[in-house]
Parts: sequence; C-alpha cells; structure tokens
Amino acid sequence: MAELERVSMSLEKPLLQRLERLVRASGYTNRSEFIRDLIRGKLVEEEWERDEEAVGTITLLYDHHQRGLSDRLTHLQHDHHSNILATTHVHLTHDLCAEMIMVRGQGKMVRALADSMRREKGVLHASLSMSSTGKSLA
Amino acid sequence: MAELERVSMSLEKPLLQRLERLVRASGYTNRSEFIRDLIRGKLVEEEWERDEEAVGTITLLYDHHQRGLSDRLTHLQHDHHSNILATTHVHLTHDLCAEMIMVRGQGKMVRALADSMRREKGVLHASLSMSSTGKSLA
Amino acid sequence: MAELERVSMSLEKPLLQRLERLVRASGYTNRSEFIRDLIRGKLVEEEWERDEEAVGTITLLYDHHQRGLSDRLTHLQHDHHSNILATTHVHLTHDLCAEMIMVRGQGKMVRALADSMRREKGVLHASLSMSSTGKSLA
Amino acid sequence: MAELERVSMSLEKPLLQRLERLVRASGYTNRSEFIRDLIRGKLVEEEWERDEEAVGTITLLYDHHQRGLSDRLTHLQHDHHSNILATTHVHLTHDLCAEMIMVRGQGKMVRALADSMRREKGVLHASLSMSSTGKSLA
Repeated sequence: MAELERVSMSLEKPLLQRLERLVRASGYTNRSEFIRDLIRGKLVEEEWERDEEAVGTITLLYDHHQRGLSDRLTHLQHDHHSNILATTHVHLTHDLCAEMIMVRGQGKMVRALADSMRREKGVLHASLSMSSTGKSLA
Repeated sequence: MAELERVSMSLEKPLLQRLERLVRASGYTNRSEFIRDLIRGKLVEEEWERDEEAVGTITLLYDHHQRGLSDRLTHLQHDHHSNILATTHVHLTHDLCAEMIMVRGQGKMVRALADSMRREKGVLHASLSMSSTGKSLA
Repeated sequence: MAELERVSMSLEKPLLQRLERLVRASGYTNRSEFIRDLIRGKLVEEEWERDEEAVGTITLLYDHHQRGLSDRLTHLQHDHHSNILATTHVHLTHDLCAEMIMVRGQGKMVRALADSMRREKGVLHASLSMSSTGKSLA
Repeated sequence: MAELERVSMSLEKPLLQRLERLVRASGYTNRSEFIRDLIRGKLVEEEWERDEEAVGTITLLYDHHQRGLSDRLTHLQHDHHSNILATTHVHLTHDLCAEMIMVRGQGKMVRALADSMRREKGVLHASLSMSSTGKSLA
C-alpha cells in the first residue's frame, strides 16, 4: 500500500455540501476515497484516449450453431494470444454463448479486436469495457 | 462568488503525482479547480440519472427542402415553449440547416423532445448535450 | 432531395419482428427512415473518430461575476472565429449564464476548444455534442 | 438459426454509397449483416434503458493487499449468487488483481452491484459493459 499524503484544496461552501451529499448518496463512507475514485476514473479515460497500454474486457454474445464460428473466434484469439489474459465461456441457453475476454494492449488494438469479433456472422453483440493495467492508479 | 472552504484529503503519493501530471496535461493551472470540475461533472451526471431539472442543448441537422419540416419543428418547439430557452439557426449550405435549441426541464422530457425531432423526415441528425441549471454546481 | 434507391436485405424473422416493435416504440412511422437514422448516427460517429471536419455544439455554464471571464471566453472564441458559426447567450439566473456555441472544424480542434473553455475559472460545466456538416449524411 | 426474410427499404443514393463505404471500412463482407448489427446494438441499448433483464460484465481492478477486501468482494458476490454467471480472476502483477464478473439481472441491479464494488477501499477501478441475454437479438 502506498504512503498517504495529506493534501488540501479549496472548495466553495455550497459545492462542499453537495460533495458531502454525493458521497453519502453513492454509499461511500469516506470523502477522500470518493475523490480518489474520480481521479482514477479520469486517469483510465486518459490512458484510452492516448492509446497507452490498457486492459479491456470484451463481452461476446453468439450462437454456437453458426457454422465455423467457434473456430474463427478461437483463431482470432490465438492471433492475439500474447494479449489475451483470460477467456471465460458461459452457456446462456441451448443456443447462445456469452464469453468474456480480458485483453491487455494498446487501446486501439483492443478496440480493433472487439470490432473484428463483432463482425463475425453469428456474433449477436460485442461490447468493450475499458479498464487499466493499474500502473497509473495504485 | 461563494465563500471558499479549505478541505483536506489524503492521497496515495503516486496517485498525487499522477494527479499533478493530469492537471498539467489538461492545461489547468490550479489543482483545486481541476478537482472541482471533476465533482461538478459528477453532479451533472447525477441530475440526469435522477431525472431532475436539467438544461440540455439539442443540435439538429436538417434539409429545409423537406416539405413541411420547418413547420413541424416550429410546432414541436411551441408545444414546449415554456421549456425552450433559445433557438439559433445556422445556414450550413444551400440545402442544410443546423439548429441549436437550449431546453430546460426534466431530463426525460428533454430526451423525448430530441427523439421526436430526430424522427421527423428530413432531420439528418439530432444530438443532445447534457448540461445543468447550475443550481447544484455554483 | 436525393433520388431514392430500393435496397433489399435479409433479416432473421424474429429480428424483423423486433425491428418492427423498435420502430413503433421509437415513434417512427417508417421502417426505412428508422434504419436510415441508424446509418447516419454511425456515419457521424465515424467522422469524429477519424477526425474529419465536423460540427459540434459546446454548451457552457458560467458565473459572469467571475472577474475577466467574459473577456477570456470572447478572446478564445475570436481566436477561432473562422470556426465558430454562432454563439447564443442565455441569462439563466442573476448569476449564471448558459451559452451554446456551434463550431465547425476537425473533431480534435473542437474538443480542444471545449476543454480550454472548461478549465477557465468560473466555468461550471462545458459539454460537447457531436453533429456533422451533413456532407456524408444527405 | 432463424429463418431469413427478405426485406426491402429505400435509401437515398448518396446515403447508399456511404453505407457501402462504411460496410467496407468496418471490415464487413455483407451489408445485411452490418445493418443487423446496428439494429441489435439499438435493441441492447433499449433493454438497459427499460431496465429489462440484461447481461453485463463488471471488470474490477484491485489491490489484494487491502485488508479484508477479497472477503468483502466474495460476500458481495454471494449476496447475488443467483445473478452471477461466472467470475474469472487474473493476477496482473504482484499486487494487482483484475476480475471479470458476468451478471444477469435487471440493468439497475447490475449497475448497483458495480457501484457497490467500486466504492470498496482497495478497488482502483470498476467498469461495466452492457450486453444482453440475447432473447431479443437472435
């Protein structure tokens, strides 16, 4: 755990009261922790904007009856095997699979991989969630 | 201008260094101002999520040759005249008009108004930008 | 008005039924118009991703009592006068002003202008709404 | 695989040309598939707006040295065990863990679960990616 520093800042009185309300409404017990999370959220946005190394989770929804689809998705992942940290497969229904794939790499590459999965026939949805290697967050 | 209060919070040392970098990279000269803007951004998000009174700007792009379109857009705005603060019309090209419409009201109403304009034939694009009455920001 | 072409496409039967439901739920009277709007929305996203010439509306909320702020906002706009199509000012309350500024230019420039306005002391919120010159939509 | 229906729609000629360009630029080989994906994307947005049953992936980044954190995250997940489909843990560094958690339930519940994880001390980032049960997509 990193050493904590005491930092002070100035806030308009009404803004401070609204901050207190926001902290409570969000279920935080600690104002510093709330502001730390705002800063971290901004840092992750910046990593993705600057195309730095990032971590993202691709969530796929697909119909495994689509001929050859599982093969193609597996090949695509192997082409990026050094960037794929983990893949978890869930059997949603008799027909449908959900898969979550954690990818580490530059933002653009991760987006391109999600896009290339989305356009496979039989893939009904592909969404991407932006996270971080944590290097700039800890 | 509201009275300022001095507030102190604790930050992990590396997070503090990254915050300093983020403040500089964003062109702010003042760390407090940067954090105040993070908090205000969160407050505006919350106003829209809770469907409180908000201010939004609808930007329309449309082809004024579409028969009856200007009339219908004007009628729609008159139906909400108490909510519309200002409308500005720009002649983009011989054919195309851009219009920005500032609306005050509950978030859901503002969204619904933008949607009803988007589906008019001849409207090529309608986007909505979420702002605030400022009641909870000042 | 551009000439219309008849295009046919294949849709899974249940997807077609859901499309019909979506068209009705969104208040469209015409399926083609609904799909055209989906395509146009995608084209505008692409213009901004590729940093092509775009149109955007910046909505500002600020306290005009902040010393020198109006001057600085005016200077900033004059520095980009060839890109600013229109500015409309609304007096929200005794203290607060809302301003909507329509800007034409490359996406990155428009974002940077919005950022430089946001970080002025006294500006409580700055949001950006992405629209288009319409060149690729009509 | 559902039966396909042939549907025809009218498109302005220039819009059709841009659609063709968009299809190629996005790497699709099939125009119908491109439009199907636009429609499905819209259907998933609608499921989340209407708070219908949805599938979402929460990606967490946390420091496992934070005392009691793993316990608390595990308890939180057990409180929702009927909604959690799978959890995968990745050891990012000596200190940091990334976890992806697939959740099925109403949109609001999934968001609230993500929020309650985010505010745990030691959790550096929590992001949510919106997917679907696929009921309205297949």
